[in-house]
Amino acid sequence: MDLTTATWTDVRDLETDLAIVPVGSTEQHGPHAPLGTDVLTAEAIADAGIERVDREVVRAPAIPVGIAEEHRQFPGTMWVSEDTFRDYVGEAVASLAHHGFDRVVLVNGHGGNVDALREVGGRLTRAGDAYVVPFTWFAAVGEHSDDMGHGGPLETGLLRHLEPALIREDRIEAARAGGADGWGEWTSYVNMAYDAAEFTENGVVGDPDDGDAKRGEELFEGAADALARLLEAVAERDVSRPERR
Amino acid sequence: MDLTTATWTDVRDLETDLAIVPVGSTEQHGPHAPLGTDVLTAEAIADAGIERVDREVVRAPAIPVGIAEEHRQFPGTMWVSEDTFRDYVGEAVASLAHHGFDRVVLVNGHGGNVDALREVGGRLTRAGDAYVVPFTWFAAVGEHSDDMGHGGPLETGLLRHLEPALIREDRIEAARAGGADGWGEWTSYVNMAYDAAEFTENGVVGDPDDGDAKRGEELFEGAADALARLLEAVAERDVSRPERR
Amino acid sequence: MDLTTATWTDVRDLETDLAIVPVGSTEQHGPHAPLGTDVLTAEAIADAGIERVDREVVRAPAIPVGIAEEHRQFPGTMWVSEDTFRDYVGEAVASLAHHGFDRVVLVNGHGGNVDALREVGGRLTRAGDAYVVPFTWFAAVGEHSDDMGHGGPLETGLLRHLEPALIREDRIEAARAGGADGWGEWTSYVNMAYDAAEFTENGVVGDPDDGDAKRGEELFEGAADALARLLEAVAERDVSRPERR
Amino acid sequence: MDLTTATWTDVRDLETDLAIVPVGSTEQHGPHAPLGTDVLTAEAIADAGIERVDREVVRAPAIPVGIAEEHRQFPGTMWVSEDTFRDYVGEAVASLAHHGFDRVVLVNGHGGNVDALREVGGRLTRAGDAYVVPFTWFAAVGEHSDDMGHGGPLETGLLRHLEPALIREDRIEAARAGGADGWGEWTSYVNMAYDAAEFTENGVVGDPDDGDAKRGEELFEGAADALARLLEAVAERDVSRPERR
Amino acid sequence: MDLTTATWTDVRDLETDLAIVPVGSTEQHGPHAPLGTDVLTAEAIADAGIERVDREVVRAPAIPVGIAEEHRQFPGTMWVSEDTFRDYVGEAVASLAHHGFDRVVLVNGHGGNVDALREVGGRLTRAGDAYVVPFTWFAAVGEHSDDMGHGGPLETGLLRHLEPALIREDRIEAARAGGADGWGEWTSYVNMAYDAAEFTENGVVGDPDDGDAKRGEELFEGAADALARLLEAVAERDVSRPERR
Amino acid sequence: MDLTTATWTDVRDLETDLAIVPVGSTEQHGPHAPLGTDVLTAEAIADAGIERVDREVVRAPAIPVGIAEEHRQFPGTMWVSEDTFRDYVGEAVASLAHHGFDRVVLVNGHGGNVDALREVGGRLTRAGDAYVVPFTWFAAVGEHSDDMGHGGPLETGLLRHLEPALIREDRIEAARAGGADGWGEWTSYVNMAYDAAEFTENGVVGDPDDGDAKRGEELFEGAADALARLLEAVAERDVSRPERR
Repeated sequence: MDLTTATWTDVRDLETDLAIVPVGSTEQHGPHAPLGTDVLTAEAIADAGIERVDREVVRAPAIPVGIAEEHRQFPGTMWVSEDTFRDYVGEAVASLAHHGFDRVVLVNGHGGNVDALREVGGRLTRAGDAYVVPFTWFAAVGEHSDDMGHGGPLETGLLRHLEPALIREDRIEAARAGGADGWGEWTSYVNMAYDAAEFTENGVVGDPDDGDAKRGEELFEGAADALARLLEAVAERDVSRPERR
Repeated sequence: MDLTTATWTDVRDLETDLAIVPVGSTEQHGPHAPLGTDVLTAEAIADAGIERVDREVVRAPAIPVGIAEEHRQFPGTMWVSEDTFRDYVGEAVASLAHHGFDRVVLVNGHGGNVDALREVGGRLTRAGDAYVVPFTWFAAVGEHSDDMGHGGPLETGLLRHLEPALIREDRIEAARAGGADGWGEWTSYVNMAYDAAEFTENGVVGDPDDGDAKRGEELFEGAADALARLLEAVAERDVSRPERR
Repeated sequence: MDLTTATWTDVRDLETDLAIVPVGSTEQHGPHAPLGTDVLTAEAIADAGIERVDREVVRAPAIPVGIAEEHRQFPGTMWVSEDTFRDYVGEAVASLAHHGFDRVVLVNGHGGNVDALREVGGRLTRAGDAYVVPFTWFAAVGEHSDDMGHGGPLETGLLRHLEPALIREDRIEAARAGGADGWGEWTSYVNMAYDAAEFTENGVVGDPDDGDAKRGEELFEGAADALARLLEAVAERDVSRPERR
Repeated sequence: MDLTTATWTDVRDLETDLAIVPVGSTEQHGPHAPLGTDVLTAEAIADAGIERVDREVVRAPAIPVGIAEEHRQFPGTMWVSEDTFRDYVGEAVASLAHHGFDRVVLVNGHGGNVDALREVGGRLTRAGDAYVVPFTWFAAVGEHSDDMGHGGPLETGLLRHLEPALIREDRIEAARAGGADGWGEWTSYVNMAYDAAEFTENGVVGDPDDGDAKRGEELFEGAADALARLLEAVAERDVSRPERR
Repeated sequence: MDLTTATWTDVRDLETDLAIVPVGSTEQHGPHAPLGTDVLTAEAIADAGIERVDREVVRAPAIPVGIAEEHRQFPGTMWVSEDTFRDYVGEAVASLAHHGFDRVVLVNGHGGNVDALREVGGRLTRAGDAYVVPFTWFAAVGEHSDDMGHGGPLETGLLRHLEPALIREDRIEAARAGGADGWGEWTSYVNMAYDAAEFTENGVVGDPDDGDAKRGEELFEGAADALARLLEAVAERDVSRPERR
Repeated sequence: MDLTTATWTDVRDLETDLAIVPVGSTEQHGPHAPLGTDVLTAEAIADAGIERVDREVVRAPAIPVGIAEEHRQFPGTMWVSEDTFRDYVGEAVASLAHHGFDRVVLVNGHGGNVDALREVGGRLTRAGDAYVVPFTWFAAVGEHSDDMGHGGPLETGLLRHLEPALIREDRIEAARAGGADGWGEWTSYVNMAYDAAEFTENGVVGDPDDGDAKRGEELFEGAADALARLLEAVAERDVSRPERR
């Protein structure tokens, strides 16, 4: 049930403790893909995952601004600090738990949010306020995950499937030309870069042409299925905390 | 220019310092109106205001969860603390200012956000980081403003105009019957209530039937025009700080 | 019972749960009125309100520095940040509640404190720590309230009644000449100013000559009566929180 | 110049960078002395110190609630947390420095505030925002300082000199009988108590009868002279920070 | 140069901007390995890395308590919150940068610290205060890294090489018997566990017998070499921030 | 039992509620004594105190960076802010209390930490989370305490006894020549200095030659005995909080 369009009386009549909060970012995705890529993909997969389970799931509105200072050199990128992001997501989730929706999946579309969402989930879960896990769609698509990049094959492919008008096909060549092969600059397994602009000229990482709409559909199906399995597992899990050893 | 669908290169090519951030809340609006009322209305009026000015305006995604703990007794209401809300909005705005979009109007759809947005605007403006003012649509519709309530004539009317399918017409009678005439419980000009449930049984304040689609259209036009005038004034204003006396 | 002069054994022997905390500001009030106007008036009305109820009321010392950065261009104005003010007032009130004085009225003399005091009251009340409401005297004087201004008819009149020596009568003409007619600079119902010095040359808003001692007395009586009524209402109110809907 | 009664134009015309902020506490002082002892004494000595120097000194209003949780078992004691106290005092002082009053003495009447005021002074001074030192009157009265206690000879004597009506002479015997000889419970030079009620039945430490009005006068003169010397030293001090070694 | 044993005059005479801060954790490592495993290993590898570069490196004392609440069910485990850990490490590093040691490697021995150290590094680096990267030894040992576990082959092997007396060889069988094969409980690529005790009975993950002293030596050499390469790269890197796109 | 070398199963089998956390600082101690003086001495005395009691005591790793900004002009000095130090120590202690080790002595070697540790102890103790007291060794050595200084007779003597190789005997003359006689610059019992470099050229206060190894041994024995007595007192103390008066 979508909270944005539901009334409180509709929500009151639900019998579930499951909820989903889509979390994204508004940040550069190269010259060819929209700044809202991470929100749009998170929302689409959240909704598809919900459809695939035979349970009621409360669906919160998407949180649109995340941890993206590493893209600050690219105009239009928005961000908040890690502390503020954690607080905002954590308190929004706690308000769902207040109503009994205390098994929550954070469906995430942005790599920069991953650590923070895990921290938020740990904080709420260990305190017993709610059981909360983050699900980042591009980490849940099997071998595809290795090709992630940024504005690369996965995101471009998924958007070509979901919202083809938002991919500027006439800029794909430019996207490839100014992009980087891999994320970061590595020495001894350490990424020495803290700003994407240190290693990519136009914000792209990976080849967007490796992601057509067909691959996008495959990603979509795979991620939605993975999310549906996770929702089942979250619903059934014993979330009590272990005893002292 | 809508940041969600634009690319960073599109944003780079803009020549403007004007931006709008819609801010709402996901909270009960009675049995007949959606939890997302405050976001939906803020977005609609933000977009309409932008259309009415002959200037480029950066349009950020809407912030969907606000200060709404006073509705916590009604299922589905989401909220964050005042501190977190101020930080989230303030930092998101600061990220826009980082790119030079440093004249910002916060288009707000929720009464509970008003004080916090003013505080955020003051903090950023006095520090010289950006010039930021909040605009709350229902406070900018002339004499209509007196009828505001909650899920009452103004919000119901505006949604009947904008998104009629989201108003449950078959519950209007129930909405009226369980609603309150006015907001709060007052003694000596002090509102003694801190939870809406202290004075309204079903979350409604004011008569939703006093707001038909025609009135909604009038509100919409009035608010959009007022916002357009404000955008002009913000664009032209001397925002330097006064000298010491 | 005034905490400043009472002993702890006197306080121990009280049978009441009512307390008052006067809250003011030390800030410019034009060339003719003292920086301490908001503290002096808050204290006077607090004491008068207490006298008019047939109940024991614990009277805390006045908090003298508030939220007044908007007057920073005028020498001598003191202020703290909104966060710090809320914490200071909130914790001071919580210490009263620790002793059982957990129905508290914050008697306020400064417009800049209003939003923050409401937030503090909401936080403590919703958490069940205490029931706390702010009372701002100049908002509780009926039609007079429309004339508020700053160092204008209401404050000048009240001080002429309470502490006539503190009004510099020989500067009233200068006060009028350099003052503003109204508070702020408005477009589309939005105050575009964040510093008082944006719209008033000498810090005055409103005509101080519209407030003579007689009007001051009327304000004083009206505000004290309103406070007394509020104290009764606070003492009798059912402060339990509503049930989930 | 007393900020409470001065106008901003009076303050503007001053030529000084010296300011004093009295800081106290509202807390139990035994059955015979008022809860406001620490504010009253701090204010009296602040004013006397100012009178003894041939310089303009800005005199801020007294901060009335300090760090006093250790007296929480005694009704009427007010307190805020250490963090909030430091922020409140520090920001209030910073607002004075904003106007150029950036050599500030915090005249303190409460032992529980000492560490926090030193921390505040260090923070502001090292950052170059202002030069700020705390002065605690009862630590500046030579050999008398050894007799400090709580509600004991020094405070009782000083109030007998300053405000004799506030000392309940008919309770002095009870104060002595229920008081403690020394502050704290000590093992290996460590005070093992964190609440005054662990070692004093009625809140008193030291014999109030060892402090008559004559001794009070001596304390007053000594402390005021010491403060005057300090003001001179603060005014003349080179407050630039040392160079790196 | 080891700060613990050096004097400030020794440090003054250095010509370098390189520093290392070892960071560990005091937490359970099974029945056979010490609670201090993560500190001991971080220190040993930090020192070995420093020896292998022909540059002066300031070596700070190790930070011994990290982010380890996930081991809270096992007695003796210490931890601080993520926020406090980030602040403590970040400010300690900033104090080194104050003296010009502003290229800093955080040599880390604990998986729970990884995200937080990356965040600290990003914060300081993006602000231009220092260039800071974390190096986690067990992520820098090539294919060995896949076997990490907890108190498993890598940590056990490394300690058998470095501090054999600290491995309780007579408890290895018990360690294996009560340990888990892998870290966490996974569904759809999401770790559903937040406490180690959810999936390991005795805190062990991986087979400690797969890590003998010889493998430990290999790990040690590999990690120390990797660290030395990183130090060179940090010393030579252009750490200026990229320009706006 | 030393947590660094113990296993969690060893700790589990303990029957005690006593713990010690050594706390120091890494900061200048003149040209002749190491930056780690305060950690080394705190650890040595902590261990000696533990040996002298016939009780099990959990011994945590030492916290090596404290509150030392006042030495910032001397290269190599590390520090964190007071807030961060309090949080780090307080949370580390709370994690011990989580396991039942909730009578804790903080064995401190640094004057700058004293106030903060007392605050931390008060916070935890008053909240009932643990009973925590700080023990600063140089304040517990009777008349010796008067000679404390900095890198002076006490610290130099103690290190000559404990770690003679760390005292640079060939720099003692220089240490004396550039040192100060006393700590601070005093007017009216107020220390007007906030940086050690305001009053000591080389960081030394007091004559290091007044502290030979024999005196060091005496200090060591005295402090260890005092700590042992304190541990007994902490173990036996009724730590319940007093009742309301």
